[in-house]
Amino acid sequence: MKGLSYLKPGVIKLQDIPKPEITSPTDVIGKVVMTTICGSDLHMIKGELEFINKHAEETGRGVVLGHEAIIKVEEVGSSVKHFKKNDVCIMSCTTCCGKCHYCKEGCPAHCLNSIGICGCYLGSIIDGAQAEYVRIPYADFSLYKCPEGIPLSSCLMLSDILPTSYELGVLNGKVKEGSTVAIIGVGPIGLAALLSAKAMKPAYIVAIDLDDSRLEKARSLGADYTVNSGKEDVVKFIQGLPSIDGRLPGVDTVIECVGSPVTFELCQNIVGVNGTIANVGVHGRPAKILIDKLWIMNIDITTGLVNCTSTKELMDRVADGRLDPSKLITHHFKLSEIEEAYKVFSNAAESKAIKIVIENDY
Amino acid sequence: MKGLSYLKPGVIKLQDIPKPEITSPTDVIGKVVMTTICGSDLHMIKGELEFINKHAEETGRGVVLGHEAIIKVEEVGSSVKHFKKNDVCIMSCTTCCGKCHYCKEGCPAHCLNSIGICGCYLGSIIDGAQAEYVRIPYADFSLYKCPEGIPLSSCLMLSDILPTSYELGVLNGKVKEGSTVAIIGVGPIGLAALLSAKAMKPAYIVAIDLDDSRLEKARSLGADYTVNSGKEDVVKFIQGLPSIDGRLPGVDTVIECVGSPVTFELCQNIVGVNGTIANVGVHGRPAKILIDKLWIMNIDITTGLVNCTSTKELMDRVADGRLDPSKLITHHFKLSEIEEAYKVFSNAAESKAIKIVIENDY
Repeated sequence: MKGLSYLKPGVIKLQDIPKPEITSPTDVIGKVVMTTICGSDLHMIKGELEFINKHAEETGRGVVLGHEAIIKVEEVGSSVKHFKKNDVCIMSCTTCCGKCHYCKEGCPAHCLNSIGICGCYLGSIIDGAQAEYVRIPYADFSLYKCPEGIPLSSCLMLSDILPTSYELGVLNGKVKEGSTVAIIGVGPIGLAALLSAKAMKPAYIVAIDLDDSRLEKARSLGADYTVNSGKEDVVKFIQGLPSIDGRLPGVDTVIECVGSPVTFELCQNIVGVNGTIANVGVHGRPAKILIDKLWIMNIDITTGLVNCTSTKELMDRVADGRLDPSKLITHHFKLSEIEEAYKVFSNAAESKAIKIVIENDY
Repeated sequence: MKGLSYLKPGVIKLQDIPKPEITSPTDVIGKVVMTTICGSDLHMIKGELEFINKHAEETGRGVVLGHEAIIKVEEVGSSVKHFKKNDVCIMSCTTCCGKCHYCKEGCPAHCLNSIGICGCYLGSIIDGAQAEYVRIPYADFSLYKCPEGIPLSSCLMLSDILPTSYELGVLNGKVKEGSTVAIIGVGPIGLAALLSAKAMKPAYIVAIDLDDSRLEKARSLGADYTVNSGKEDVVKFIQGLPSIDGRLPGVDTVIECVGSPVTFELCQNIVGVNGTIANVGVHGRPAKILIDKLWIMNIDITTGLVNCTSTKELMDRVADGRLDPSKLITHHFKLSEIEEAYKVFSNAAESKAIKIVIENDY
């Protein structure tokens, strides 16, 4: 079968590889209906993760990427209870055993039996879904039947980008009806956070970015205010917003989707009393914490990897129309064209790619 | 009447001052039965808070300190609903209107109508309880009747030290049965956190301090392990503890009760995956946040001032014997001796003072 393999830094290839087989009674083999590319796939193909480079070399044929997919069940392991042949399912990016300490504590992102990259075991430690077929371990905890009436491409957004932005941004950030929200960085994940925050009916959302075209997209997806942080003083802007119900200056929730010391410090300067800074960004360096200011403010700072425990809740929001993930889809390709799709997604500044749907045409 | 007044940096005096009167229909005038001294009183008398220095000068007779007391109701304002003459009550350190945005959001520490020091309006912005009588604003939201069968000196610990350590350390830190806990700094507030954490039946509590005699006290209050961070490598110690239920190295909850960049960084090096750093310490400088390590760990960092929303819950724990606050009481004085009590409390390194009960003998 065909699979997009990461061979070594800078080198990916759609090549012939063995079709996966059931290796454990909890596995499902799925025929990939559609898949997509994630920002973390780009980190991997740049060679930023040494243990993946090593793993790709050891296999002799690289690692098949992809932790997001809609699959059609082809074969089920003997102990799989909830799925049968031909079920069409969302494959969660988080694989989890459902039995270890972290799974039982509601934090399957750190499942002791499937530790991978950013909680994604598939497409890093074991072959992923940018292929014709994929083996899904612990299928009972990782698959969700696609509901009737929702386009499969919308369901595909429930593999990773929506639960990630919703759990780490909206739920961790305690966004609720009437909240005041700022999102720093409105790339794909920031826009997805905007979309899912909007569904909570906040008082307002401020989108902050350096790129005017991203801010324009944010406005079209429902941002009430946009601020270009390269041109305007963000702190002054936030402080100048009208107070709602007597709130002191600052917003209730800041969702950090950039991952830099500068933006992390900015969060601390725009969060209000009793607020939350919800980190979604990937950080490569330590930052400064203004704990001399924050200790007295009753604020929370949250971090994490997605647990995919919100999938069913998100499905309901999509089903009743409060949330329309199709707004995140900008491009369509076939699996046979996936190398080209990677080029387009890697060059998002020009292509304006947010999410790319890749249909299996084999 | 007599009241302990802060006059100017370094100067306090038990002096004759006017007896307080009802100034608002929501007030109660209480005869002080007993009061105590808080660490934040020491910060004030050192002159560290400029607006208090200014306020003390403006009144011409200083500010009466004290935000912790057991009072007997002497007179009630016309709109007070829940209290009547002769009720013996715990006076919460947090005064709140119960109606503003922050009160309604469950964060009365930031009540827009009674902003004081560390959320304490009494004993900073208005005269406090280290006196014969005290005026308690918004009495319906600030007083709790003392339950039968609990010594009043134990009830006194429910004014501030217990709710502070419980809400900011134990509740914010999500300590529950089976949790693994570390407390950095076991001065009065750290010991109170230890006491209230212990009531949750955690798997173990590690007490960390530079002072062996404090660590000994911590052990006597239930710490399972003690580490002198001046003599031992704390990170190595924590990593060497046996894993419980397969947990990865690190503890579920770190309660920071020191307030320095060094201890705040230590928290980050001993917290485990899916854990929480609950800040209780007062910080005067920014610190480093190892966000490049933490972003992936699903951890929370919490800060805040006490809301005193847990008072009833703590009363229940004291009533059924799970929590014995009398263990925090080391010294007894009369109000007429309060200047001496301040000397003893200020010199805690030698006196080993944790909490001092001061009875009104006037």
